[in-house]
Amino acid sequence: MFQERISKLHDFLANHELDAVLITSPKHVYYLTGFFTDPHERFMGLIIPAQGEPSLIVPALDREAAAAASFVQTILTHTDTDNPYEILKQALPAGLSKLGIEKSHMTVERFEAMGQAVGAQSYTDVEEPLREMRLIKSADEVARLKNAVQLIEDTLSETLKKFKVGQTEMEIVAELEFQMKRLGADGPSFSTMVLAGEKSALPHGTPGSRQVQEGDLLLFDIGVAADGYVSDITRTFAVGEVSEQLREIYETVLAANEAAIAEVRPGVTFAHLDKTARDLIAARGYGEYFMHRLGHGLGMDVHEYPSVHGQNQETLRPGMVFTIEPGVYVPGVGGVRIEDDVLVTESGVEVLSKFPKQLTVIG
Amino acid sequence: MFQERISKLHDFLANHELDAVLITSPKHVYYLTGFFTDPHERFMGLIIPAQGEPSLIVPALDREAAAAASFVQTILTHTDTDNPYEILKQALPAGLSKLGIEKSHMTVERFEAMGQAVGAQSYTDVEEPLREMRLIKSADEVARLKNAVQLIEDTLSETLKKFKVGQTEMEIVAELEFQMKRLGADGPSFSTMVLAGEKSALPHGTPGSRQVQEGDLLLFDIGVAADGYVSDITRTFAVGEVSEQLREIYETVLAANEAAIAEVRPGVTFAHLDKTARDLIAARGYGEYFMHRLGHGLGMDVHEYPSVHGQNQETLRPGMVFTIEPGVYVPGVGGVRIEDDVLVTESGVEVLSKFPKQLTVIG
Repeated sequence: MFQERISKLHDFLANHELDAVLITSPKHVYYLTGFFTDPHERFMGLIIPAQGEPSLIVPALDREAAAAASFVQTILTHTDTDNPYEILKQALPAGLSKLGIEKSHMTVERFEAMGQAVGAQSYTDVEEPLREMRLIKSADEVARLKNAVQLIEDTLSETLKKFKVGQTEMEIVAELEFQMKRLGADGPSFSTMVLAGEKSALPHGTPGSRQVQEGDLLLFDIGVAADGYVSDITRTFAVGEVSEQLREIYETVLAANEAAIAEVRPGVTFAHLDKTARDLIAARGYGEYFMHRLGHGLGMDVHEYPSVHGQNQETLRPGMVFTIEPGVYVPGVGGVRIEDDVLVTESGVEVLSKFPKQLTVIG
Repeated sequence: MFQERISKLHDFLANHELDAVLITSPKHVYYLTGFFTDPHERFMGLIIPAQGEPSLIVPALDREAAAAASFVQTILTHTDTDNPYEILKQALPAGLSKLGIEKSHMTVERFEAMGQAVGAQSYTDVEEPLREMRLIKSADEVARLKNAVQLIEDTLSETLKKFKVGQTEMEIVAELEFQMKRLGADGPSFSTMVLAGEKSALPHGTPGSRQVQEGDLLLFDIGVAADGYVSDITRTFAVGEVSEQLREIYETVLAANEAAIAEVRPGVTFAHLDKTARDLIAARGYGEYFMHRLGHGLGMDVHEYPSVHGQNQETLRPGMVFTIEPGVYVPGVGGVRIEDDVLVTESGVEVLSKFPKQLTVIG
């Protein structure tokens, strides 16, 4: 798995006539070697030369962990009194001219210090091949994503068991995050969102001291990180009896969610998915209240490629994982969003999130 | 308060003959204006020109929040279809030659995109004056730090009420993080650490499924973030009856903690504080088991300047806030760390953390 990823970077390296690639983001070191650490202010780098085997430079205290977790044979270390860029220079090919780096991760401070030591002629951004690789999930990645989805769904089930009318949004957030940890997740994959009543109509609202009341919609947009991968689902519930209008909004969003999911298969465009959901919502008179994209890619990051919006003419490929999350938000009244995590398969779609979607009354 | 901070940046700007300073880290925009947002992948910048008033560039959706929270009069916005660096160019002084930037925050990708648009002749890092300012806390900052300390101490009290022998480290972590949220903190300020028994001897251990047993030491290294500031305290408890050796270790660390705190006053060096604790521990035969620095600065970040270690010959000044956290870690036996947050005052010291330090038996 790691050798295959490294070999794809080798293709990029050859096409761009680079002498080597230096990977510095902890996430991509993990993706390419299996070793994860956050070295904070200390330097860490994976060196992939055009010729020969990769090597890894880590802080001295991470040597054993790196050796145990990664396939890389050559592990170089530095202590706080070393200049890590001198060690980097030694590890890079002699006569280095063109180096690939992660320009969206490396800071100017590091770039200047590194440049002084290694003195390449030019630096090329390697984000593109990494993005392209991450777009198609391996079986191992799909298993981790499924685990992250299962954890957040169990979290939601446990939290609903303890739900009572009168709780505040923040109390429910606290319970959710307690359950995540208890069930074994590393923690939330983004700021846990619970919005009640009129606040459910704020697509980017912040949970606060609003108490949940009878007649409210209660929206949960939640996810966890576990084993390096994340989940992200949204479910909206009725607290006791809700108005006819809120029910109609709910059924509209559910129909849009299901219609878009039914179109997921290799070869269709992301724009088509977005249009399918948007047209259905517009036909029911709520078009102006769905003002965000249909979804986003999901993997090691909670927002990654692809972007599921009306201008994206790229086509779906097997192994892509993304969210489908239509919403309708009527100011002052309430909002509904129903978000699933889906995997494109050879024959169509596998919906990773299983939590029931029919309007459910709680409290 | 903000004007005073901006004026200190003006001094730096004048000394280095800069035409303007561009601040891009959300933390420092907050520190200098009172407005906090995390713009994620979008651009945000505070422009402080040599002549004239500052201006702020924010994503369009943050306009109202920025206007409400900050003193800055000129707020420019960009949408996802704008090139924010063109807006930046317009906001910078005409004929710009020397620009101050945050080199430890700005990525190479941004630097290249910005450089193309604004075309300054040289870029100077502005970290130093920001670090120097942040070293001395204002009354407002001290109040926020006290609040963060109070919140973590209340969190610990509530969690201990629910403590039972047999709980796992991770269950206690989950309870702590639940209580933090419930009490109103934004969340943990670092990865919450609870270590039991022999694991308490690992200064960088990770909480897991280890159950707490009679005879264990139980170490809590915990903190919260609230209102932009953080706390960081450590307390170690005895679970039921502990061995004579563990009691001796505890009393050694407590004596070192108290001896170092007693030396905190303006004019002494950080090295002296470290040596005071280290000498006491060595005199009792545990010198080799105290293998980290005595402490670190605390403020908006959980690790910031000053660094409290044996080579730091800088002197304490009123308004500095840092941790005092001696520890003794005997492999296979157990470890004790006792960490307080202290403020240097005109006359000596104010210990911000109040949680009792005498060896306490729980369970």
